[in-house]
Formats: sequence, C-alpha cells, structure tokens
Amino acid sequence: MKEFEQWQGFSGRKWKEGVDVRDFIQNNYKPYDGDESFLAGPTEATDKLWGKLQELQKEERKKGGVLDMETEVVSSITAYGPAYISDDMKDLEQVVGLQTDKPLKRAFMPYGGIKMAEQSCTMYGYKPSEKLHEIFTKYHKTHNEAVFDVYTPEMKLMRHNKILTGLPDTYGRGRIVGDYRRVALYGIDYLIEEKQKDFAGTARRGMRSKEFRLREEIADQIRALRGMKEMAASYGFDISEPAKDAKEAFQWLYFAYLAAIKTQNGAAMSVGRVSTFLDIYIERDMAKGTLTEEAAQELVDHMTMKFRMVKFARIESYNQLFSGDPVWATLDVAGLGMDGRSQVTKTDFRFLHTLENMGPSPEPNLTVLYSSHLPEAFKKYASHISIATSSIQYENDDVMRPVWGDDYSVCCCVSATETGKEIQFFGARANLAKCLLYAINGGVDEKNKVQVGPAYRPITSEYLDYDEVMEKYDAMMTWLAETYVETLNMIHYMHDKYYYEASQMALIDTDVRRTFATGIAGFSHVVDSLSAIKYAKVKVIRDENGLAVDYETTGDFPKYGNDDERADEIAVWLLRTFMDKLRSCHTYRDSEPTTSILTITSNVVYGKATGSLPDGRKAGEPLSPGANPSYGAENNGLLASLNSVAKLPYEEALDGISNTQTINPGALGHDADERVQNLVQVLDGYFDQGAHHLNVNVFGKEKLIDAMEHPEKEEYANFTIRVSGYAVKFIDLTKEQQMDVISRTCHERM
Amino acid sequence: MKEFEQWQGFSGRKWKEGVDVRDFIQNNYKPYDGDESFLAGPTEATDKLWGKLQELQKEERKKGGVLDMETEVVSSITAYGPAYISDDMKDLEQVVGLQTDKPLKRAFMPYGGIKMAEQSCTMYGYKPSEKLHEIFTKYHKTHNEAVFDVYTPEMKLMRHNKILTGLPDTYGRGRIVGDYRRVALYGIDYLIEEKQKDFAGTARRGMRSKEFRLREEIADQIRALRGMKEMAASYGFDISEPAKDAKEAFQWLYFAYLAAIKTQNGAAMSVGRVSTFLDIYIERDMAKGTLTEEAAQELVDHMTMKFRMVKFARIESYNQLFSGDPVWATLDVAGLGMDGRSQVTKTDFRFLHTLENMGPSPEPNLTVLYSSHLPEAFKKYASHISIATSSIQYENDDVMRPVWGDDYSVCCCVSATETGKEIQFFGARANLAKCLLYAINGGVDEKNKVQVGPAYRPITSEYLDYDEVMEKYDAMMTWLAETYVETLNMIHYMHDKYYYEASQMALIDTDVRRTFATGIAGFSHVVDSLSAIKYAKVKVIRDENGLAVDYETTGDFPKYGNDDERADEIAVWLLRTFMDKLRSCHTYRDSEPTTSILTITSNVVYGKATGSLPDGRKAGEPLSPGANPSYGAENNGLLASLNSVAKLPYEEALDGISNTQTINPGALGHDADERVQNLVQVLDGYFDQGAHHLNVNVFGKEKLIDAMEHPEKEEYANFTIRVSGYAVKFIDLTKEQQMDVISRTCHERM
Repeated sequence: MKEFEQWQGFSGRKWKEGVDVRDFIQNNYKPYDGDESFLAGPTEATDKLWGKLQELQKEERKKGGVLDMETEVVSSITAYGPAYISDDMKDLEQVVGLQTDKPLKRAFMPYGGIKMAEQSCTMYGYKPSEKLHEIFTKYHKTHNEAVFDVYTPEMKLMRHNKILTGLPDTYGRGRIVGDYRRVALYGIDYLIEEKQKDFAGTARRGMRSKEFRLREEIADQIRALRGMKEMAASYGFDISEPAKDAKEAFQWLYFAYLAAIKTQNGAAMSVGRVSTFLDIYIERDMAKGTLTEEAAQELVDHMTMKFRMVKFARIESYNQLFSGDPVWATLDVAGLGMDGRSQVTKTDFRFLHTLENMGPSPEPNLTVLYSSHLPEAFKKYASHISIATSSIQYENDDVMRPVWGDDYSVCCCVSATETGKEIQFFGARANLAKCLLYAINGGVDEKNKVQVGPAYRPITSEYLDYDEVMEKYDAMMTWLAETYVETLNMIHYMHDKYYYEASQMALIDTDVRRTFATGIAGFSHVVDSLSAIKYAKVKVIRDENGLAVDYETTGDFPKYGNDDERADEIAVWLLRTFMDKLRSCHTYRDSEPTTSILTITSNVVYGKATGSLPDGRKAGEPLSPGANPSYGAENNGLLASLNSVAKLPYEEALDGISNTQTINPGALGHDADERVQNLVQVLDGYFDQGAHHLNVNVFGKEKLIDAMEHPEKEEYANFTIRVSGYAVKFIDLTKEQQMDVISRTCHERM
Repeated sequence: MKEFEQWQGFSGRKWKEGVDVRDFIQNNYKPYDGDESFLAGPTEATDKLWGKLQELQKEERKKGGVLDMETEVVSSITAYGPAYISDDMKDLEQVVGLQTDKPLKRAFMPYGGIKMAEQSCTMYGYKPSEKLHEIFTKYHKTHNEAVFDVYTPEMKLMRHNKILTGLPDTYGRGRIVGDYRRVALYGIDYLIEEKQKDFAGTARRGMRSKEFRLREEIADQIRALRGMKEMAASYGFDISEPAKDAKEAFQWLYFAYLAAIKTQNGAAMSVGRVSTFLDIYIERDMAKGTLTEEAAQELVDHMTMKFRMVKFARIESYNQLFSGDPVWATLDVAGLGMDGRSQVTKTDFRFLHTLENMGPSPEPNLTVLYSSHLPEAFKKYASHISIATSSIQYENDDVMRPVWGDDYSVCCCVSATETGKEIQFFGARANLAKCLLYAINGGVDEKNKVQVGPAYRPITSEYLDYDEVMEKYDAMMTWLAETYVETLNMIHYMHDKYYYEASQMALIDTDVRRTFATGIAGFSHVVDSLSAIKYAKVKVIRDENGLAVDYETTGDFPKYGNDDERADEIAVWLLRTFMDKLRSCHTYRDSEPTTSILTITSNVVYGKATGSLPDGRKAGEPLSPGANPSYGAENNGLLASLNSVAKLPYEEALDGISNTQTINPGALGHDADERVQNLVQVLDGYFDQGAHHLNVNVFGKEKLIDAMEHPEKEEYANFTIRVSGYAVKFIDLTKEQQMDVISRTCHERM
C-alpha cells in the first residue's frame, strides 16, 4: 500500500493499493445539499484575465474565426515551452498551461491526416510548412491515408453519397476521456510504475499480435507520462508526486488534460467528471484554513477559462458539419453514488457558477448528471442557470448509473464512459432516412442516381405498401449495419496504428473495456415516413428512369413527438431493429456495439444530401436533429413531445439519445421563481420516465431572429444556445444553421 | 488471356492467364548439355567498366572499407536521379542503375533503426543529418525502437547474454526474394492490375485486422510498383510494358532488384534464379540474329557487375558478425525441372563465366543447384570454376526440388524459397552449445554469471551423468525454443509494421506462403560434448560459487565428422529434437517453422560468448561454423566428414545445413583434369546421399597464411574464399576471422 504525505487527511485504503479514483472520491467527498448563497464572485484576477481573453476572442472573430495558427511545429506534449494568456499577467493565472505558444493559437496536428492539417492552414491564409509536408507524405503515413488505403470501393461510395457521414477518417476520433484526476491524486511516477506492472503482466507464453500491440501501446503510454512530467516542469511544476493541495490538484489535473489536447484533435476532447474530486482538495484546504471561498472559486474560474480556450484547426467541411468551433470539452457535475448519496458538492455549484462569473460560454460543455433525487437546492440552481444562460445540458443519471456505475464521464455530447476504465470507439452515424429511400429504390442513391447499396429489387408500385417497404427496409438496414461496422473496424484499426491516443490511454486502465459507438441520423423522419405509409396513402413520384424521387402523402397519420403510441412504437422498433443488426457484427478489438441518436449540427448537411421522404420532408431540407421529433410534427406541447422521446429505451442506445428543446420563458412561468420551479418539474417528470438527455434552451424565437440580424450587438457576443450535442455561440453558427435553429419548435406551452 | 506483342515467339498459355513465371520458363527454355567452348571473353566495354570499378574498390579499401556515404537523403525507390559507374562511360553500360547517386556510395536507411543508420555514418566519419534524426526519433518510429518497446526483460537478457544472437531487430530481416523476373515478363502495369485484383479479392464480409493489414500491404505494394516505373523512367526506360528483347529483360529485371536494394538493407538481398529465364530472351534474340554471343555475355557481365556493387551501410557489431561486407546477392544457376529436364542453359554457363571474365568475386553469391543428373559438361565446368576461384557454393537440388518445386531461389546462404510464391521470416540463431551449459548450470550464464534461463535445478555431481544431462538439456531446450520463437514473433510483427518490404512483396503472390526460419549455432560442439559425456568421463570444474566453468574429459569418445554412427546419431537426435520443439510453438502469421544449421562467420563472435564445453573446446574459442564438424575432430579424411554431415535429414532443417570444406589442390589430383574429375565425383557422392550444401574451397593453408601476412600483394586483391554462408575476399576478413579460417581443417586427403 502506497502512502504519500500529500495524502494526509484522506481516508480509505483501496485507492492506495492501486489506481482507483472512484474509491478515493467515495471515501472522502462531502455531499452538499445547501443552496448557492455561499458562492463568491469573480476575483480581480479573474476579471482581468477574462477581460483579456474576451479581447482575444473578439480579435479572433474579426479575423474570420482564427486568431493564429502554427505551421512549423508539430504539436506534441513537449513541442512548446511555457505560455500564458498574457505575459504581463502570468502571475495572476492560478492554473497555467496553453496548447501552443500563444493563447487561442491553433496547433498543427498532422497525424490524423496531413491534407486536412494543411487545408485548415490554407483556409485561413497560412502557408503550411514544406518540411512537414515532406515528413508526413514521404516518411510518416497518416491515419487518413492508411484508411483510404484499405477502404473497399463500396465504402468509398457510401461515404461519398453520405449514407455514412462524418466518419472519423479525416480527423481524430476523439471521445476518449483520460482520467485526468489520476495525475493529481497519484503523481506521474506512481502511474508510470503501475503501467510498468501492467506491461510486465501482459507477458505470457504464446503472446500474439494482440499482445504485441498492447505492449507497444503501454510503452507509448509510459512515454506520454514522461512527456507530461517534462511539460509540467517547463512551467515550473514537478508533477512526479501527488498534488499536495487544491491549487496543485487543479494544476496537475489540467496538465494531464493539456497533454491530451496537445496531442489529439479529436472531435470531442472531454474533461470528464472532476468537480466532486476537486472538492475534496478544496474542503481539506478550507478545513486547514489555507483556502478561502474566493480563492476556491478563482481556481474553478481559471481552470474553466482554460477549457474555454481549447482550439483546434478545422477544415471547411468540418465546420459545415459542426458549426461554431466546438471541441466538446464536456465537464460533468452532480449525479448520485451507488450508495444513494448525492455527489453534489459545493464545487459542482462552483462550476455552474462560472457561467455567472464569466458569463455564458459554449465550452466547457457543462453537463448536469440529473436525477430527481438530487438535492432540491442544486436542481433549482441548475434550472436557474439554464434559464439565464441556455448553456447547460442534462443527462439522466438514473438510467446511466446502473450501466456505467457512479463514476462515468460524458465523452462528447450524450455518451457515457466509465472514467478511467472504459473508452469508446467513436463511430459517427448512418443515415437511416437515406437507407429507407435505398430500400425503395433498390440501393440506388436518390440524389446522385448511382448504385450504392446492393442491387435489391426496387419497389415499383404506385402506392407504397407497408409490408413490402418493411421487408425491403429490413434487408437494406442489414446491409447498412454490416458495411457500416466494417468501415468503422478499418478506421479504428488504422487509428490505433497511426494516431493512437497514448496520453489519454496512459490515464486509463490497461485492461480497458471498449464500446463501439455507432449513430443514427434521420430518426424522426423514418418513423414518420413509416407511419405515413402505414396510416395514410403514399404515392410515389418517379423520374424518367423510374427512380422514386418524391412522395405525395394523402390523409393524416400519427407523428412521433405527440405521445401517440402508434408512431412511438415505430420509433422503438426502429431503434431496436438497427441495434440488433449492429450487435450481430464482429467489432474491432471485441468492443461492445452501441448506438446513439445524435446528429449534432450535422443534421443540416445530412439533410442536404437526402432526398424527399414520405413524411413530407422535402429533398435537401435539414433532418431533425438527434432524437428530436420532426419540425412541425409536435402538436401537443412540450410534455407530449418529451413523453415520446422518453419511450426510447436507453439500453438500446447506450451511446445516447439526444433531445434539444427550446421553451419560451413565458411558457415556464410568470416570474423567475415560478420558471425555476416549473423547469425542475419538467426535468423530474421527463427523467423519471427513463428519458436520457435534454438540452434546455430558454428564450423566444424573436431573440434568435434579432441575434441573426444584429450579431454586432454587445448582448449577443456571448449569447449561447444548446444545439444537438453541444452549446454554441449563436452568432458563430452558419447562416444555414441559424435558420435551422430558428425553424425548430419553440414551445410556447407545456 | 493477355497478349503482348513483346511476347511474340513465346509458347504456352497458363503464364498468360495470370502471373506464372515458372510456367513461362518451362514452356520456353532450351536445355543445354554442351560444354563451355561457346563462351565469349569480356568486351572492351566490360574491361573498361570493370577496370573503373576495381579502381573504386581499391579506393574504397584504402578509405577503410567505405568509399562514400549518404547522410542527407533517406533511401527510397525514387530518392535519386539516374547515376552511372562513370559519367564518361555511361554509354558503355548495358545495364544501368545505381543504389544512390554515385557508385559504391552507401545509402541512408533509417527504417530498421535510426541509431544503427547513424552509427554506421559516424563510424566512417560521416555526420548524420540532424533533420533526419529529428524525423526518425520524433515522428517516425523505427523497427528497432518498436521491438525494444515490446521485448520482455527475459528476451533482452537472452539477447545480451548471446544465447540468442544476430536477431534482426537492429537491421532489416532480408531473406525475401522478389520475383524480379516478373517485371521483365509482364511489365509494371499488368503487375499493378493483378495486385488490384488481389486487393479487391481480399474484401469480404467480416474482415478483421488480418485483412486490414493485408489490404494496406497491397496498397503499399502498388505504390512501390509505381515507384519502380518512375525510377526506370528517370533512366529513360518505360517499364510499364514487358521487355521486348534480352537487353530490356536484363534491364527490367535489374530495375526490379534495384528497387529492393534501394529500400531494404536486409542481411540478405538475393537476386534469385534468373539464368534460365534470361536465357529464353537471349535465345530468341539470337534466333532473330539480333544478338551475338559477345553481346549476350556482355549483358550477363554488366548485370553481374551491378550485383558486385551492392553496398549497405553497416555498423561495427554487424561487421564483426558478418565480416567482409557481404550482401548475399545470391544468384542461382542449374537445377533440374520437375519433368527431369536439366534447367542448365548457356546462360548458366555465362553467369559462372563472369568469374573468369572479371575474376573472382564474393558477390553475387553464385550458387549451383546441384544434382548428379546435371549435364556432365556443366558439372565439370562448375568444378573447374570452383577450383580456379573458390567462389561458388553447391546446394542439393535433389533434396530441395521435392520440397520447393523447380523454381525456388536461395534467399541467403542455404535457404530455399519458392520464387514469387513464398517468403521466409529470417530468424538468426539460438546457441545450442550455451543452452547445454545452461542445462548444467540451472539457467545461469557461464560467462556473465547471471540467471538468464529458468532457474531449474543445476547439476551438482562431480562427473556428468548422460541421462541427467539429457533430461535437463531437453527441458532447457524447450524453454529456449519457446522464448526464441516468441522473440521472433515480436520482431516480425514490428518488421511488418515499421519496415515492410513493399517493393519485394509487390513481386510475390499476394497469397504468399511463409516459413519461419530459426537457426542453430554450436551444433558440432553439442554433439561431441554429449558424446564425451556418454562415452568418456567428464569431470566438472566449478568456480567458488559452484558454477560449472570448465570440464576435464578423460578417455576417448566418437566425434561428429568421422562417419561414426555413435556420434552422428546424436547429431540427428539434436536436430530433430530442437526442430520438434520449434514446431510446437505458435508462429507469426501462421508461418511454418523451419531451422538451419548455419552460423555464417558469426561463429567467431558466438564462440567468444560461450564458455568451455565438455568436448574440449575452451571458453571463447570460435564455434565450428554451420554444420561443420569441430576443428580437429575430423580424423578420417574428407569423405568421412562429408558422410557425417550428409546424415542430417534435410526435412528437419529446411532452412539449410551449411558445410564448408577446404581441399588442398594436391588432394584432388595431379593435374587440372583429374582435379575436376575428382571434385565432380566428390559432389556426386555427397549429394546423392541427401546432403544439402557444400562450400568448396580449393587451396592450401600456406596460401591463406601468405595472404594474411601480405594482403598488399596484387594476387590477393580479389582472392575469394567460401566461408559458412557466403564468399568473401579473404583480405577483407577481420584478423580474428582469418585466423579462424586458417585453423579449420584443410583436407590433405580424400
């Protein structure tokens, strides 16, 4: 059993016998069920630094979205010396460390794909380095090149025709959350020792390729841990041993996270669940009298400021998909323990409070792990923050805890992973709406008019017959699920080979459990289309070649989003059926297949590539985001809509079911108190039914329209909204996506 | 079925339906059973070029063994523009193409290991490039680094204590022979087409890592084929289509080989079996009247000159192991067909004749695939060349043909591979003599006095008991075989990952068969030691810690190399037992385990690391090379020695059984005719018994001593001898190895 003097005052023993942060938390945290009255405002240092950062952000926007870019240095843990928000104010920074040598400057990260790294430079007028071009074309293959080396023509075709979309073959797969707390609790040296033990433990008679790969991975992880130590040393900190107080705990944890964002530009670079952990250090310091509330809040504010600064160089097509420069630095608060105690601490309040101290912000992607059993005062405070900032999302701790335990982190938007013990292979999404059109057209793409899917017999009748459609749709989904999984298998094999996440995996158990994420796009449209075929009359409009290109639907039919069993049972069937097909495929590294109903903002781009559907959605129109009901389909108010979504069984979509709703403040109540009260009630009711996720926006459509038309207004500079999967500054969205957000249902009544 | 106009006059059809060089040869070659009287001397161009090359070689020797080295350019197929032996004489070169931009200049090849590549530079006073250092330490991992990432401590210990030696973990594994003839016969475009078909053929539902690896390999192969085309184009040749005449056939084939030696610095970079193939083109041109004998010989001479020029940058420890700068550009002639026809053509004569036209030379490593059924005139001519030059080796076609078919190539010294259909994973060797000492000492190394093997119970008795030794030896060999194979599995996994032989594999069937070579060192010493323990009395001398460090053997005992069944049956038992243990291990990519009894010149270094043995060999003395009987053990003349070696069953050592013998010219006969006659008889008798290999040296000890003492004498400049596994200029050997060669038995009687 290890004993460090830095651990003085901490209880428990299991976490001292091996890496076990959860056990440390459970033995040492102090639940808090009081209200927010203890919170402190921003310090002068916070105001100054945040002021400076806002100046930089303005300058960034002025420059077209990018303040500065690296072209000569390949990012790595130790590629840069120490850097600060402002050299004049570096003493003010309670938590130090930047991704590059300057604030908001974007790093050059070619391992995912040199082409993309270079495109992102040229797009903003920067000239990529010729030397690095040579290195990453002549000497070092990239993930992107390798994947395209092995793809089948069919996969390329599916990708090109966008029945598979957003595949992580041109960028980092992300979605891995290192247990960054480990560095604070144990220090680097102990973590290296433990990894060395793991390395030794993999040696056995009869090792094969699997073991060789793992051994090399551990060797790379140890190298990464050493790199973190070196990087921290450059800032004047020795992180070889555990953090001795709260300030060090924040700093050590942030260095660990910093190593991740210096080496990976994954779509999601989440922070994880850190509040309860950090609270233990704050409480200990406060008990000793060495920390005030102001100082504690300052630590939270300054670390949060750093999370607000995370930047990656992206390419145009990426920005189209995921508008507004998101990085998914998801940070979770609240949740219950397996023992029923609330995990809410004062620091959970403090993290939400950053949205008040420094105003709304899309990052970190603040996520409340919700349960109706959370302390009332916390629920109210969260609701209050939602109403004031529209910057936070809620996920149902009561459905996730039985699956992932009580120390999971959300690794992107809605996907849980057990912190430090499990990772996800991110898998983008399949367009099930397009798949339905392929079923009707015998695998021919309705937009590009080429054979993409298998040349099954098309439907030739004038009116669609439900049974025939279902039979053909089932077959086409089987093909889609199989090819989709095979494509992802190739991607993950090559990602491990060419762009392995050593610095994150170094902070995760060697004997890691892996889920294999997939995703569904176009969900509500398939449900409503099948319902139309079943309950109304759908006439097929064909082009001169007999290809179905549009539909005329006559008669009424039930729609998903109205708590109507007839439509909602189709929704459940669709999810179960696709998930079952995924389950029957072999997945890379024997990972466990899961799926999500989550499109993020890509619903607009996916919609562009998808033809007209029997539900009335016309070709090119945006798909409904995530698991949201279709635009205009919800006719029975917010609660009926939530009830429909809540019916989707979480165990069939363990990667998450995203639902984004906008409520007019007036619909919530007449005054602040009533609104808070009502929002808590809505959340309790929704999540008690087993629903998984809710993005809560509280504002009226008129505000969106005004912001779109007058982005220059000071009040809109930080106006943040929740879109499917993340939060974003509304003025940073593309015009198209602003229009899409505006056209979504804004509930005027409950 | 393909038809190219370049194929006019060629018969057969199977080889036109898919890549099948053997079928082309069998359908088109013309056996020749005449004598050497048709041969032509060197042309003026040959004399001039060879004269120039000899000057360069002299300069190279003067400069300490290396004429020039690259430090700034990483070698690749297209790294250099065209280059010639001499810019003044480039029109004289019938076959063009150099490894780098200057003759004899050594390329920089870091993929096997940057440290080694750099060491080889600094060793000769060259300063390695800082830029390349950065690339191959920061961005691109090398094979060497990766292997050491995954080794177990036990493996490192075995390597350090030299019970495993010469492992290809610091250099390229070599031993892969591309079917370079394919480029001449089919042209690059067709080969790319066929590889594209193979690529498509690997696509199936349920692909896994194995398939992904293979698909990526094929993609890399196709890239290499394109590179060959580009490289040839830089010399002014379009090799996209088949060669249209003999000159092009030589040139196309050489370009293919050149791509291999530009990308790999494997221990062995063999040319393969090309004589019969090329003869077909020569015959066709001669029939058309477009080629004379002089011109044909010039093509052979010029291509051979290029093989004599192959150079790699090596490090000191490599030179210690394999002295004299060998590259194993092994080139095979003769052999029979499955149909019983001799495959000897005039071009087989022509290749041997290069040793007369341009004098003796260690490279290419000329190998006669021998059978007593070869035409008498050819056997005599080969014997004549052996007696005159001591530059060729003989391998038994009658034992290899049933295993490898009639189109195999020797891929190093004694190892056959089916050309274009099979490759070998090279595996260096295990020191079975040291293993015997480990058995006696319970796994403790007798030189370094550390526990290396498993801590089994040591032998503690004063005198060695045969049964006890055998039991313990068996257990220790089991451990050795298992760990040896595991070590090689790791090496080959990483070699495939970081240093894949794309340009060679591009010329080999995608559905390739793989053997997994291993090797045995110290063979004769184990046999004689076990015989001593069994038939004489062996007293153990122990140090102060009880470690057995020497042996006193009293009484006579039978020794291997005298045709004495008692010793020879131990030899057979040893080989079979070790091979059986290897067979029971899992081998990488389900390759077929084989072994060799071959030490090359490493017997000296291995001997240094091996303690005293019960057979009377003292600590540090060289081991006997290959399967050779021990120094001084042979007491019954050449034939008795050959009979002993011939008893080793080839099917238990499919990777080859190397035997090197030196015969005093006087022992062979009184005049040239008698000597030739007698050597043929020796070879017939030896190989008819099923023996595998013979290096034939014909000279007396006094010549060696004189050459050692007077290396400056003109007559010794090209004095070549056969050592275990290759030919070498005697004056290029280290002093230690010269002494070793001198101390070996020189048979004064038959």
